[in-house]
Amino acid sequence: MSLIPKSHPRAKSLLIREKLVSGFDSGLVAKEGLLAQGRGEAFDYLLGEKTGKSAKTAIKAAAAQILLAKLSVISVNGNIAALCPKEVVRLSKQTGSKIEVNLFYSNEKRKNAIFKELKKNGAKEILGKNSAARATLSGIDSARRIVDKNGIFAADVVIVPLEDGDRTMALRKAGKIVITFDLNPLSRTSQTANITIVDNVTRAMELLIKNCIILSKKNKKTLKTILKNFNNKKNLSENINEIKNNLTKRSRIA
Amino acid sequence: MSLIPKSHPRAKSLLIREKLVSGFDSGLVAKEGLLAQGRGEAFDYLLGEKTGKSAKTAIKAAAAQILLAKLSVISVNGNIAALCPKEVVRLSKQTGSKIEVNLFYSNEKRKNAIFKELKKNGAKEILGKNSAARATLSGIDSARRIVDKNGIFAADVVIVPLEDGDRTMALRKAGKIVITFDLNPLSRTSQTANITIVDNVTRAMELLIKNCIILSKKNKKTLKTILKNFNNKKNLSENINEIKNNLTKRSRIA
Repeated sequence: MSLIPKSHPRAKSLLIREKLVSGFDSGLVAKEGLLAQGRGEAFDYLLGEKTGKSAKTAIKAAAAQILLAKLSVISVNGNIAALCPKEVVRLSKQTGSKIEVNLFYSNEKRKNAIFKELKKNGAKEILGKNSAARATLSGIDSARRIVDKNGIFAADVVIVPLEDGDRTMALRKAGKIVITFDLNPLSRTSQTANITIVDNVTRAMELLIKNCIILSKKNKKTLKTILKNFNNKKNLSENINEIKNNLTKRSRIA
Repeated sequence: MSLIPKSHPRAKSLLIREKLVSGFDSGLVAKEGLLAQGRGEAFDYLLGEKTGKSAKTAIKAAAAQILLAKLSVISVNGNIAALCPKEVVRLSKQTGSKIEVNLFYSNEKRKNAIFKELKKNGAKEILGKNSAARATLSGIDSARRIVDKNGIFAADVVIVPLEDGDRTMALRKAGKIVITFDLNPLSRTSQTANITIVDNVTRAMELLIKNCIILSKKNKKTLKTILKNFNNKKNLSENINEIKNNLTKRSRIA
């Protein structure tokens, strides 16, 4: 039973929080993942807890990029497995992207729980546990440097929701095109990725799948034009402006 | 041993995070407390992780208010016990404030761990566990409604670091003067308290104690003038402007 009083004005946000806490209880989420979710909540609060115009532009560009990829891989961590396992599997099936589990605070038990959760939600093939397929990305100190040679290591496009800055930089240095979801438009991940979706992943994943369905009917030239017209730095500036406008608006109401 | 790579550019912030995680492991901090810390981290990031000018003004007003109180009580939750137990005890001794443990997600085991941590850091008398002294604050759905009749219930000034909005409102309705630490200047707590210190509690507690030492040498008239010249709404607006300026500055560097 939920401990959250129904009268609480932020009950909805608290209920999403409980989802993470429950993911923690079932061994998907690391303690540090609860903290990371908290940071996301704060930035989402500043965004007004809705998908902004600039996020929609980034989502469309991301869809075009995924559809143009030779091999795209969705990198999954504990928080993603707790928040939107169904959407990961749907995106994978819709676009032929592979799924690979890659953790900052790695341990086998948690990795197994994440595999189980993804399988429960319909995933067939999941990479990240086959030690015979291990490859190493340089420039990363954490456990995240270990990747699958048939997955992230071979991919031209990597979708890394809720990412850390080190790995995003290492992936870029390895020549990957990086798509990320990050609610902080100023983070190193946001600034380093090729396409940054500044939005709550629970809202944005759904929209990304929709965009992939719509754009899969378009030809390559149209997709390339969408990508050519997208400028990540400009998009991030627009996100920062959206936050500043929200701060102004909210401080007037307060 | 810390799992955080030394090369990580946010190693300092990650080490504070580990303090909370360790507080969680020792039973002081609730899972929801880890999330709350994450939200604080995000707002602190936007403040540039330093004590701003407006926070310093609020800290000075808070010190004056505590010194003018008939009975001031410091309300302690799990996160405060994990982050700055020493400072709570020092503030209590410096100003004659009582210490009372009051939890949103209450359970006896966690309460005992918090009592133990405060005692380990030099606290003599701690309220919040004596069922014979129970009193009830109206307008709160959570366990936080239960207070000590010789503590928060009797106090004219209550210091509530890292507070929830419901309780802040209930304390105000009960006629208390509320001093809070909240990194989100837009939160209900921030907007409802009499004095809101928009700063990281680990930095601000230290400064508050210093201000109490300095102002304890002043007469009542001087303290009252400091309070009279303090306007919480105006101070919060200045905090919001500081965040907006930081966003502008950081988006230029990024």
